[in-house]
Amino acid sequence: MTETTAASYPIDETNRVKRRHDRGRYDHATVHALLDSAALCHVAYVIDGQPYCTPTLYWREGTTLYWHGSSASRMLRNLSEGQPACLTVTHLDSLVLARCGFNHSADYRSVMAFGHAKLIEDLAEKERALVMMVDRFFPGRTATLRPSTAQEIKATAVVAMEIEKASAKIRSKGLADDEEDYAFPTYAERIPVRTVLGTPEPCDRLLPGITRPATLAGFSAGRLLDEALTEAYAMSYPAG
Amino acid sequence: MTETTAASYPIDETNRVKRRHDRGRYDHATVHALLDSAALCHVAYVIDGQPYCTPTLYWREGTTLYWHGSSASRMLRNLSEGQPACLTVTHLDSLVLARCGFNHSADYRSVMAFGHAKLIEDLAEKERALVMMVDRFFPGRTATLRPSTAQEIKATAVVAMEIEKASAKIRSKGLADDEEDYAFPTYAERIPVRTVLGTPEPCDRLLPGITRPATLAGFSAGRLLDEALTEAYAMSYPAG
Repeated sequence: MTETTAASYPIDETNRVKRRHDRGRYDHATVHALLDSAALCHVAYVIDGQPYCTPTLYWREGTTLYWHGSSASRMLRNLSEGQPACLTVTHLDSLVLARCGFNHSADYRSVMAFGHAKLIEDLAEKERALVMMVDRFFPGRTATLRPSTAQEIKATAVVAMEIEKASAKIRSKGLADDEEDYAFPTYAERIPVRTVLGTPEPCDRLLPGITRPATLAGFSAGRLLDEALTEAYAMSYPAG
Repeated sequence: MTETTAASYPIDETNRVKRRHDRGRYDHATVHALLDSAALCHVAYVIDGQPYCTPTLYWREGTTLYWHGSSASRMLRNLSEGQPACLTVTHLDSLVLARCGFNHSADYRSVMAFGHAKLIEDLAEKERALVMMVDRFFPGRTATLRPSTAQEIKATAVVAMEIEKASAKIRSKGLADDEEDYAFPTYAERIPVRTVLGTPEPCDRLLPGITRPATLAGFSAGRLLDEALTEAYAMSYPAG
């Protein structure tokens, strides 16, 4: 929303990619494209010195990340006053079997985003976020649903985190042995890994005449999840 | 190794599943089966009050989790003295489109494991761990590789974390609308999500006569990653 193509997140000791720094990227375009291609993230936060790593669904709006949960959840209560957090998204793209142990690896794409997570208290802001929580994944869907009740809105906590720093790290080179090791007589390969959609399973209690809306066409059997989510994101947030 | 089928991890305020507690499991069998079915985890740890959520490959031996990285990495330096950490593994199994926003959900299987991560300093222990880092995924493979050099062993840091507490959380019920909402005229479905193997890509510089070993047969195109990894684990750790 506020970004330009050339914008980047600031780099400091928190988010600088130190190991294999050639794999690090900080520009909004790379970071946001990865964030918009996934539904599942892991959020790290701290309670009384104990780190927690919690999986959750999330989405992005401009340079803000959102996730939600029960108003009763331990994580969300802890974040209500603006706690430091780190939200990470990772795609595993392959397993790499090299000719020595050291060069065994994996292709992957990941983003670590750092900021302070805060509970959304404003009711209008929260209701808008709850719409996007569904519509970011399934464009326009909220308008077709049974409206949320006050009780449901109350029971759902939504967290917003402005991305203060972020880094993307991408490994995509596949098999890469040391040059002298290609003479070593063993087998080596790259095994691609893909996260794909299965055949959608319609509810077996659909009312007569209810059919699958065209807005879900992108969620088709065999499609890569990251592609379907990226496409859905672009429909819901055409400005990026 | 030391477990019995009936063994469970202790439960306290750190790992008790509070939200949707009916989804929580603490027994070794459930926790370990999930841990052994994945390659990628996210580890949460803290440096100077800042939480980090780092993706990495990992494996289990008994009630100990292992992961590795560069000896120069920030995370591993920080963990050398036994830092609290939380290692989480998540499988996303579906997206659930219900008849109201509140019942939109996802099927998933996740484990959060808590402990204190420590660098392995003992050389023999470290060398054994480096063998299992490969062989846990590809049984017997290390014996077929160009042996590791002292330099490579030195450059690789291995972390061990005894699981002090753990919880598994599984949602597998798919679409579940409120009973009265089935009368609401909108479309609803479950979209399965699967992480699968693609067609293995042999190195294009294989020496003449080198063929794919039978031990890799389980890594075949279209196979579920979690099934292939579970099977490989059982070959490398027949005692569980």
